[in-house]
Amino acid sequence: MQNSAVKYIKIKKVTSENIIDANDHLAVEEPLEIQLRYGSKDNQIKKSISVTMRTPGNDHELAAGFLFTEGIIQDYSQVQKIETDPFDENKVIVTLAENEIPQLQSSERNFYTTSSCGVCGKSSIDSIKTVSLFQDGKDVISLSASLFFSLQNVLKNQQEIFQHTGGLHASALFDLSGSFVTLREDVGRHNALDKLIGASFLLNTLPLQNSILLLSGRASFELIQKASMAGIKIVAAIGAPSSLASQLAEEFDMTLIGFLGQEKFNIYSGSQRITH
Amino acid sequence: MQNSAVKYIKIKKVTSENIIDANDHLAVEEPLEIQLRYGSKDNQIKKSISVTMRTPGNDHELAAGFLFTEGIIQDYSQVQKIETDPFDENKVIVTLAENEIPQLQSSERNFYTTSSCGVCGKSSIDSIKTVSLFQDGKDVISLSASLFFSLQNVLKNQQEIFQHTGGLHASALFDLSGSFVTLREDVGRHNALDKLIGASFLLNTLPLQNSILLLSGRASFELIQKASMAGIKIVAAIGAPSSLASQLAEEFDMTLIGFLGQEKFNIYSGSQRITH
Repeated sequence: MQNSAVKYIKIKKVTSENIIDANDHLAVEEPLEIQLRYGSKDNQIKKSISVTMRTPGNDHELAAGFLFTEGIIQDYSQVQKIETDPFDENKVIVTLAENEIPQLQSSERNFYTTSSCGVCGKSSIDSIKTVSLFQDGKDVISLSASLFFSLQNVLKNQQEIFQHTGGLHASALFDLSGSFVTLREDVGRHNALDKLIGASFLLNTLPLQNSILLLSGRASFELIQKASMAGIKIVAAIGAPSSLASQLAEEFDMTLIGFLGQEKFNIYSGSQRITH
Repeated sequence: MQNSAVKYIKIKKVTSENIIDANDHLAVEEPLEIQLRYGSKDNQIKKSISVTMRTPGNDHELAAGFLFTEGIIQDYSQVQKIETDPFDENKVIVTLAENEIPQLQSSERNFYTTSSCGVCGKSSIDSIKTVSLFQDGKDVISLSASLFFSLQNVLKNQQEIFQHTGGLHASALFDLSGSFVTLREDVGRHNALDKLIGASFLLNTLPLQNSILLLSGRASFELIQKASMAGIKIVAAIGAPSSLASQLAEEFDMTLIGFLGQEKFNIYSGSQRITH
């Protein structure tokens, strides 16, 4: 845990009895600019790709994960270096290997530009299919329902910053035996997942088809989209999924679990992988 | 409540006992494109401003609220009409009155383009100050702490869609006596607030300096920014604020309450307005 992920402040605590001065911890939220540099030595192009409000820490993973889950880069071999701007701790510079071309149209791929929707969910999903690398064939994953009941406790124990601040989302990876692998936290749920996937990207361990992704909150379309880009087949959320998240999971033959508790959960798609 | 805000699906319910088929409701998430049209009759400019993943319903409020809280339009008199595209229910067209000029640079105002941060929170806050209309002088609002203890119950009772789906954020307005005024829900917390502020914008009842804003979840920088644009002086969140949210509230002399419960809460800034 980085210190800069938590900020100490003075607050007032109010009860029905009184108002007292107290110290408190807040989850830090700061903008991070991701700048991409590519081209040749003689003609390097610098392009600001995104600014996201994030909790400082694991910024290089966040940048890598964002560029990967948005389909802008596909493989670690394309990256020459990732560095924090020496003059600005809120800016990460990702330099591609010479003559590697980022797929910048990918990040504008879907409804964001065309958006002739109506069946917009469907067209969004179709466009994601075209950029996702890991659409391999059928798997034979079979997991016991009881494996999932314990995941929430592990998440709680691992969420260090959340324990201090109550202000962070988490994304965690477990292997198919239910053993904890790794976790990332952030004020933005999409950032927590980008950090998690970015960590695998930097270790060159993608795709994550033999992992369980646990989300500390709700499952939105965006999170399922990012998970699908990383080849994840099993997603379990403590909260509710949205309609489009459920639809996307169904289309991608992903197992989507929601309202995960210690004694029960719901399966929204891909129930063939869960046995009793 | 619009029907299209909830989708009915078939799921599997898993307990330690068994797995059974069941029906469930999901909060609908679909993209909404906001298109702005402006200029003169002979030379109308059409510009897509934003695509946001939202829960259908109150789309015109969402469009108006977004354009207002982003500083692109300032007043209802600037708007000629707001309509849903007859060929696309996921597209809202906002047409400005002739020769009204949208402040499009406002939406790119802050760190998103310049981003020479480091003290980035501070520079973001400064840039917001320049576009916020309602930075009036000192107020003399004084509220009893006990008034806040009951707000959460009202929120729960009013959150119709959430009760069905567990998947929606809410923003609600109360008057200074603690009486409920109105509420909006959405899968995106920023959308719920834009809908709420947009409703006031369309009724021409801004600024909301005599209202309490209640947020169903956490208080991020973005939400405090939007609240400040609407002139709101008192924000209470059920969840935690982020560091930058707290900092922005402090700068704007806003009262920011977090972890609001039925018997206690924390005050992060502007405690002078709360008495026991």
